[in-house]
Amino acid sequence: MKVELDNVKPMEIEARSFEIITQELGDTPLIPGTEPVVKRCIHTSADFDYARNLCFSENVIDKALDALRGGACIVTDTQMAKAGINKKALARFGGEVYCFMSDEDVAEAARKSGSTRACASMDKAAAMDKQLIFAVGNAPTALVRLYELIRENKISPALIIGVPVGFVNVVQSKELIMETEVPYIVARGRKGGSNIAACICNALLYMLDNRRD
Amino acid sequence: MKVELDNVKPMEIEARSFEIITQELGDTPLIPGTEPVVKRCIHTSADFDYARNLCFSENVIDKALDALRGGACIVTDTQMAKAGINKKALARFGGEVYCFMSDEDVAEAARKSGSTRACASMDKAAAMDKQLIFAVGNAPTALVRLYELIRENKISPALIIGVPVGFVNVVQSKELIMETEVPYIVARGRKGGSNIAACICNALLYMLDNRRD
Repeated sequence: MKVELDNVKPMEIEARSFEIITQELGDTPLIPGTEPVVKRCIHTSADFDYARNLCFSENVIDKALDALRGGACIVTDTQMAKAGINKKALARFGGEVYCFMSDEDVAEAARKSGSTRACASMDKAAAMDKQLIFAVGNAPTALVRLYELIRENKISPALIIGVPVGFVNVVQSKELIMETEVPYIVARGRKGGSNIAACICNALLYMLDNRRD
Repeated sequence: MKVELDNVKPMEIEARSFEIITQELGDTPLIPGTEPVVKRCIHTSADFDYARNLCFSENVIDKALDALRGGACIVTDTQMAKAGINKKALARFGGEVYCFMSDEDVAEAARKSGSTRACASMDKAAAMDKQLIFAVGNAPTALVRLYELIRENKISPALIIGVPVGFVNVVQSKELIMETEVPYIVARGRKGGSNIAACICNALLYMLDNRRD
């Protein structure tokens, strides 16, 4: 095979990628306003399944942008998702990213309760006095715990990004979140991941850049 | 919808996930010895495409395990991939993970040359006097630069994990790596990502755990 590279300047690679994605999506129906999120998930995974598995609660994009603009903080369930979020873009509005998964008190709480660290780290987040966006790309137990905390009126998240990936209780945990009144962006089914969780946060942050309203 | 959770203990979730993956793979032909890598990529993405897009150079698994056992270090092209690699498992053999993408000298070198930071960070890695595994999950320009450095006899990597994701020069950059004599694990086509790069490193590390030879 003769390999020929396309001549695209470094600064233009992302824009060109989004053009290709838009072109290949063709007439695929997307909910107006959600396109930047859907396209960035495809950009991050090269997986067009995200054009049909992403579910959005009513007006979730506006609500999410309002929360970010107001300085909401993001809680992730992996260090990897935390690493992937554009923290500079978030900091401009006063927000920070937290991941409690490696915290000793979280490990201890999980050991004591026989639960997961993801679950315990949601409890730790619930005790914070901040407006929070949860970006869950790995642990369905984190989503199940958020569901319980919402039902018990112990938290009221500004947004839940529910995109854990996998094979055990992943599908169900996402359905639970979609039963709540909390604003959500969920990748229905098995797919998702820390990369998807991070890129949805970034898509929202970059929408604020473009709007600057 | 009535949501019912499967009763699987936290410690058993990963094993159960791998059982489901094995079951659903059925008779899909996999290269003997590569199964743990293929299955972990599916575990990380819930995307069974990895059962057919992963390409392995001859005896690459044995070569990779030898390198890790000998204390090889891993260079990534994103902080996210670095965050996802099990650094404790790597440290047992003396290895470390490096990502130079945020380094000021790398940013400066990229500015000067009109190239990408990924490219400049490969140059920085090439100047290290260590046995290196490159885990590239994001930037095709990193793979293209590695190809050039190999051709110029400036590096001789122990392994290249070539799994950038995307739409511009991604496919081609992977084909270039497969033209070299360097041991490789490549996800042919557009798919891949920092999560895939990290999970391939972890799959290899966990194979060492199970073998302990």
